[in-house]
Amino acid sequence: MKFIVIGGDAAGMSAASRAKRNLPELEVTVLEQGEDVSYSACGMPYNLADPFREMDDLVVRRAEVFREKQGIDLRLRHRVDAIDRIGSSVKGTDNKGRPFSLYYDRLLIATGASPLVPQIPGTDLPGVFVLKGLHHGRQIKDYLRKVHAHKAVIIGMGYIALEMCEAFRALGIEVAMVKPRPVLLPRMHKRLSEIIKTVLEKESVELFAGVEPRSIEKEGDLVRLSCSGQEFKADLVLVAAGIEPNSGLALDAGLELGPSNSIAVDRSLRTSDEKIFAAGDCSDAYHVVTGRKVWIPLALRANRAGWAVADNVTGGEASLDGVAGTAVFKVLELEVATTGLNMEEAKSAGFDPVEVVIESRSRAHAHAGSSNILVYMAADKPSGRLLGVQMVGREGVAHRINSAAVALHQHMTVEAFSQCDLAYAPPFSPVWDPLLTAANQLLKAL
Amino acid sequence: MKFIVIGGDAAGMSAASRAKRNLPELEVTVLEQGEDVSYSACGMPYNLADPFREMDDLVVRRAEVFREKQGIDLRLRHRVDAIDRIGSSVKGTDNKGRPFSLYYDRLLIATGASPLVPQIPGTDLPGVFVLKGLHHGRQIKDYLRKVHAHKAVIIGMGYIALEMCEAFRALGIEVAMVKPRPVLLPRMHKRLSEIIKTVLEKESVELFAGVEPRSIEKEGDLVRLSCSGQEFKADLVLVAAGIEPNSGLALDAGLELGPSNSIAVDRSLRTSDEKIFAAGDCSDAYHVVTGRKVWIPLALRANRAGWAVADNVTGGEASLDGVAGTAVFKVLELEVATTGLNMEEAKSAGFDPVEVVIESRSRAHAHAGSSNILVYMAADKPSGRLLGVQMVGREGVAHRINSAAVALHQHMTVEAFSQCDLAYAPPFSPVWDPLLTAANQLLKAL
Repeated sequence: MKFIVIGGDAAGMSAASRAKRNLPELEVTVLEQGEDVSYSACGMPYNLADPFREMDDLVVRRAEVFREKQGIDLRLRHRVDAIDRIGSSVKGTDNKGRPFSLYYDRLLIATGASPLVPQIPGTDLPGVFVLKGLHHGRQIKDYLRKVHAHKAVIIGMGYIALEMCEAFRALGIEVAMVKPRPVLLPRMHKRLSEIIKTVLEKESVELFAGVEPRSIEKEGDLVRLSCSGQEFKADLVLVAAGIEPNSGLALDAGLELGPSNSIAVDRSLRTSDEKIFAAGDCSDAYHVVTGRKVWIPLALRANRAGWAVADNVTGGEASLDGVAGTAVFKVLELEVATTGLNMEEAKSAGFDPVEVVIESRSRAHAHAGSSNILVYMAADKPSGRLLGVQMVGREGVAHRINSAAVALHQHMTVEAFSQCDLAYAPPFSPVWDPLLTAANQLLKAL
Repeated sequence: MKFIVIGGDAAGMSAASRAKRNLPELEVTVLEQGEDVSYSACGMPYNLADPFREMDDLVVRRAEVFREKQGIDLRLRHRVDAIDRIGSSVKGTDNKGRPFSLYYDRLLIATGASPLVPQIPGTDLPGVFVLKGLHHGRQIKDYLRKVHAHKAVIIGMGYIALEMCEAFRALGIEVAMVKPRPVLLPRMHKRLSEIIKTVLEKESVELFAGVEPRSIEKEGDLVRLSCSGQEFKADLVLVAAGIEPNSGLALDAGLELGPSNSIAVDRSLRTSDEKIFAAGDCSDAYHVVTGRKVWIPLALRANRAGWAVADNVTGGEASLDGVAGTAVFKVLELEVATTGLNMEEAKSAGFDPVEVVIESRSRAHAHAGSSNILVYMAADKPSGRLLGVQMVGREGVAHRINSAAVALHQHMTVEAFSQCDLAYAPPFSPVWDPLLTAANQLLKAL
């Protein structure tokens, strides 16, 4: 039996490896259009922050290992141009520019996502970058080694933009951030995003929300970004304005699409063609709180989906519950974490939500080194169900969010969550964990 | 209506405060035999580690505040000697040595627990200490300020013993630890407790397990602890060999007792007399995994039980799910956390348990500053239910355990837990959180 995987990153290589482990006689071919497989893309901002690290440190397993130790037919620089569902084959162009056609019994589309680049002149100029694949990381690393950069402008204010802001600041590079929409981190409650804003401004990061980029031009060694009412000169411009799923192949093949044009899959990761699976950033998932389809492209669910595809291709019956929308990131000295829904999302999913924001501490009363933690918590008034949590603080935020994520998977009420026996010791928490304080407070509004 | 509370620490003052808030016309009297109320007992080791801090920094709310701002009739140095259930009154001795008798409509016994002191000669000598109440903390603090201590011997190797070991080492005091039973932290899996042992030994802490204390004597300015086959001379001896519930009053009054002679209460915190409640370290609780009664004296459940009593006394209907046995502590550079059952506990509760220990990392592949995390996970083979988790590591352990605790409250299977959307970002976790790696591994044994 032939299993073909399009795309050799998180979902694709997880699926290929596990399928081969599950069923050694399976013929597994991975077609990757680039040169890199199996690397920690999320690690790139941290790698870039350290001039003494090579970008290739982020490679988790090299192509040779997949080929020689695992027996996977891994083909780099092989681009798939079309899926022929009637003939059960993929057609493309190989690393020497020659056409190829390969038959599949089962196919996995794991084509990932691509950066959204604003439709303005000059985004192809030297000194203008995006950050998605390892080759993008290498380009930025090479540029920073060649150019003694003093100033960077980032288009976008999402996770990647903020992580790169931190990386630039660590390198002593001044940062201005620009986005067309008026609000920093619009999914977050304003009281929490204000904390992040304050910390960025304290670090001299200039924030320009509600500013539309118009064009990029070269000006000597610098690049000039012209915006509505604003102009920036910098050594480099990073475009980190979001991503979109690479679902073109699926669309052309007539497969159903889901939210944000991601490829629609069921809980078994099957597309509308039962021989074809999709996993990772290119595909959608169920949200465990709403039960509806969402497109939330993150690493864990890509790996998990890859494994589930492998199990289903090799005779198992894996079915995924879905995502809670759990995400965490670090920006300067802050940890920021979210899971579940905010008020707007809850309303549009048909809930009747109430919310609280509470302020608590990271350690016990009178314990040295304690700092503030802000917790946002939302619940459905009629049912009392927990709907979402957001947290910001200097410590103790990143892992705390997981207990709320588990509660969301279980459709717990705030009342039930408030009864949980969470850990307490003075160096790590107040007696009432900040999440319990939030739950106790929210109970009064229910 | 008269509500009398015996004991003015976590459970007692939580109950008194909340009852008065719920129902301002309620007459609330708290009878505390000592001089201190409402302090962070768990903070004492950390306070002792810092010679520039006063022990009274740990007082969360002073007696005057309870009296003047909250209208609670708080009486210090009032010892209750007997409960007259027929007459609905408590009889005792006041701060001037005079007898008193007070009528109650509802009574809360929140008498806490007392240190277990081995029945050997010399435990009452100067230089021999226990650590439970704030007055114990003050005694040790005063002694350390007076005596330039070089060496301490600790009898016991539990949480408090290990936290005090860390405190003494922070003060530059050499530490030997002695316990009669042969194993350090017997509830923990050996692979995890070995890590703790290694770190203690690296810090030059001498560990003597299986060594029975025989007597303590004065020798000049020092105290000499004689044990089976071993003798220690030190500036001080700390007895931290466990605690026992203060249930004598309840026993004398004919109330039912539970595990370890703690006071038996139902989910509403009622004792076998419906007018009398018990809460905190003196009382038992339901274990959410086994459904059986346990005595696990920890701070959060004391506070929570105090609130529940207040609600029930003032016309509400609070009922507590119980405890998962979640506990966390810090020892030197390690974070140690547990929740739920170990193999022996699982077997004796009627489960057919299997277990795994996995090694993972605190941060992502190639992320600087990453360290090892060991995770122990146990499950019931027939049902697949998660039964218990233990973790040891230098970072990222203390709050991670909470997601497992929530899972235990929900009786989740390992399969369901393995599907949870836990947080990932390179500074905080591998893509697969260590708990998910453990769950994935444990699934293979189910």
